[in-house]
Amino acid sequence: MTQAQQTQQIRGGAPSRRALLGWGGAGLALGAAAAGGAVAVARTGDDTTPAAAGTGSAVEFHGTHQAGIATPVQDRLHFAAFDVKTDDRAEFVQLLKDWTEAARRMTAGKPVGEGAYGGLPEAPPDDTGEALGLKPSRLTLTIGFGPSLFDRFGLQDKRPEALAELPAFPGDNLHKARSGGDLCIQACADDPQVAVHAIRNLARIGFGKVAVRWSQLGFGKTSSTTPDAQTPRNLFGFKDGTRNIAGTEADRLKEHVWVGDGDGPDWMSAGSYLVARRIRMNIETWDRTSLQEQEDVFGRDKREGAPVGKAGEHDAPFLKAMKPTAHVRLAHPDANDGITILRRGYSFTDGTDGLGRLDAGLFFLAYQRDVRKGFIPLQRKLAAHDALNEYIQHVGSAVFAVPPGVRDSGDWWGRTLFSKEA
Amino acid sequence: MTQAQQTQQIRGGAPSRRALLGWGGAGLALGAAAAGGAVAVARTGDDTTPAAAGTGSAVEFHGTHQAGIATPVQDRLHFAAFDVKTDDRAEFVQLLKDWTEAARRMTAGKPVGEGAYGGLPEAPPDDTGEALGLKPSRLTLTIGFGPSLFDRFGLQDKRPEALAELPAFPGDNLHKARSGGDLCIQACADDPQVAVHAIRNLARIGFGKVAVRWSQLGFGKTSSTTPDAQTPRNLFGFKDGTRNIAGTEADRLKEHVWVGDGDGPDWMSAGSYLVARRIRMNIETWDRTSLQEQEDVFGRDKREGAPVGKAGEHDAPFLKAMKPTAHVRLAHPDANDGITILRRGYSFTDGTDGLGRLDAGLFFLAYQRDVRKGFIPLQRKLAAHDALNEYIQHVGSAVFAVPPGVRDSGDWWGRTLFSKEA
Repeated sequence: MTQAQQTQQIRGGAPSRRALLGWGGAGLALGAAAAGGAVAVARTGDDTTPAAAGTGSAVEFHGTHQAGIATPVQDRLHFAAFDVKTDDRAEFVQLLKDWTEAARRMTAGKPVGEGAYGGLPEAPPDDTGEALGLKPSRLTLTIGFGPSLFDRFGLQDKRPEALAELPAFPGDNLHKARSGGDLCIQACADDPQVAVHAIRNLARIGFGKVAVRWSQLGFGKTSSTTPDAQTPRNLFGFKDGTRNIAGTEADRLKEHVWVGDGDGPDWMSAGSYLVARRIRMNIETWDRTSLQEQEDVFGRDKREGAPVGKAGEHDAPFLKAMKPTAHVRLAHPDANDGITILRRGYSFTDGTDGLGRLDAGLFFLAYQRDVRKGFIPLQRKLAAHDALNEYIQHVGSAVFAVPPGVRDSGDWWGRTLFSKEA
Repeated sequence: MTQAQQTQQIRGGAPSRRALLGWGGAGLALGAAAAGGAVAVARTGDDTTPAAAGTGSAVEFHGTHQAGIATPVQDRLHFAAFDVKTDDRAEFVQLLKDWTEAARRMTAGKPVGEGAYGGLPEAPPDDTGEALGLKPSRLTLTIGFGPSLFDRFGLQDKRPEALAELPAFPGDNLHKARSGGDLCIQACADDPQVAVHAIRNLARIGFGKVAVRWSQLGFGKTSSTTPDAQTPRNLFGFKDGTRNIAGTEADRLKEHVWVGDGDGPDWMSAGSYLVARRIRMNIETWDRTSLQEQEDVFGRDKREGAPVGKAGEHDAPFLKAMKPTAHVRLAHPDANDGITILRRGYSFTDGTDGLGRLDAGLFFLAYQRDVRKGFIPLQRKLAAHDALNEYIQHVGSAVFAVPPGVRDSGDWWGRTLFSKEA
């Protein structure tokens, strides 16, 4: 390898057009390296998906279903809901195609655009740059379409009945500015900078066509979709949702999560429905509550997460041993005709409210085959009876139809909904 | 080892008093294990500092200086400023002692209190529990005292002159609710749940005596205090502050960071002064700015972080090659009579403002030997001339005297300031 090639490799990416033009300060040296024949080396490096290596690895973007649902839950979340600003269907479809291409690159650990700064020096960079040098970090990007999107672009007949607006539940205190949205992107990654970078670049690409309505950072996962893993603790210090659907349980996924052929409009086959709820926890009140009351509220032991009367987290619960208002007793599938949802929630802490209390809680994310048969009946019951209601408040809410996966390099997000041929 | 002891070990901590009392469901089995003689095993486990092992390891809490300043920068931050609510000096001193003991335990990866849930079932748990089972994650807790604290408790004569209130700088748009504070705690850890847990438990212990005034989560470090490491990128996609003081550079720390004997009041010897600034970045504007303008603003190449005309991040800059308003040219020690501050800032993203823009930026944290000779003259110059000002706004500000380290297990935070013998 020549010294020029080595220099290029250390720089770790394709030469920018700036470099090829010999523009700028450091660019002069880089331009010389490129002229020395290092282009092929760098291009190869740029087009290769980084090798899988634990939390730094890449998750395959293409598939029957979108990644980010059955994928083992990553450590961090950045979730954004967008409103559509354009009335031009063709422009919106082009955005979905542009987003898909950007998502394909970012989930593989590549910057947006060809080369990190592929543009001319006179133009803004193709990629904002803060993730340069970071690993793919198992980034997944998952798109969803909100009910209000179907009032646009002649989509009225395409709206699935399973994408039901949520009713007003007792105790709801929803902030409009943190609810709804024409579409959403869920970015999950093991490195928060990678998740934030992805949402930011999609927002940038969508400038003028869509606008961020609200967004939420999640710093700690509260659910596991990995079989036999310990359930992470929520901010009440408890393990909750210990019998979550694992990404490897094909039968349960098929029964409870993936939309089947004939479930509704064809375009949603292999998709899912997402309910997002911002649940504020009254941390300070909870922290002054006795251990016994806390354990009664959940119906679990705090240390182990074991159901009342049992020894281990994953032991089958004996519901009648719990108080009638215990969270587990009310939410368990056995008490709800088998209703099961796949949970992917994250803890959040957004500073302090005006009263010196932590603005913290659970950003609840649940995937299901039909919102009318999943979250809605479950939450009707919980909102009416759950002892936990004394310590929480639902302050944000949204529901989205999550279309099937992007099949291959020619496919794009939402094709089954928007394509004339679909 | 008996089976009972093994069970105890798997449970991973001291038996709670609840268990010893044989109370509760799962507690019955645990009580039996404890009765079988496992107490010593568990107590040993509870009192042993977890072995150092990469990002999961523990950082020593005791020392000449507080940890969290020269310590290699951890990945995540939770920072909280508190106002004092009690007028009782003895009560406040007791809080400092209680906080010290809690900090000593949490930085070692232990729950607050003896055993995770050492209290009676009728009492709130000693520890809120959400960090149970997590590693120490290099948690450091660093306390600071704000100027307003010295208006209380007869401390007027103890206020160091070096703890100067910051003047109003041109362009400042400070939010009162995000500024000031009688004291602060900086929690840094490689796991955000560990940092959030620590602040929350200190706030809980302080209930009624202090109240959180504001707090800030930082998701990505922007500085390195490790020699020769690559500088992490800020949300503008740039490496900034590449010649930061490393934790191993004893001479530079002594000259620029640690308060020396005779610098001011004795109680601050081996301490430091902290400036915190919440700097909002106008992300959307920046992202539409040309690469050339971005690089001109910083005086660096975006890809490498190299100063104008140089090839590598750590190459010595040639300041005159930069535009007169370039950030590096203005901030460099060579242009400021050698002024050098130790930076430990973090990127933040706190959702979206009312206009659909990311509420994101840099939570700037800088340690120095004297605020009057560190941040103030530097910021006077930057506020007047820095090209970056078009893209940023300072929206929060605070300054704190950071006392020396807690020497040993009998010492406590603030002893040199509050103790009669000191």
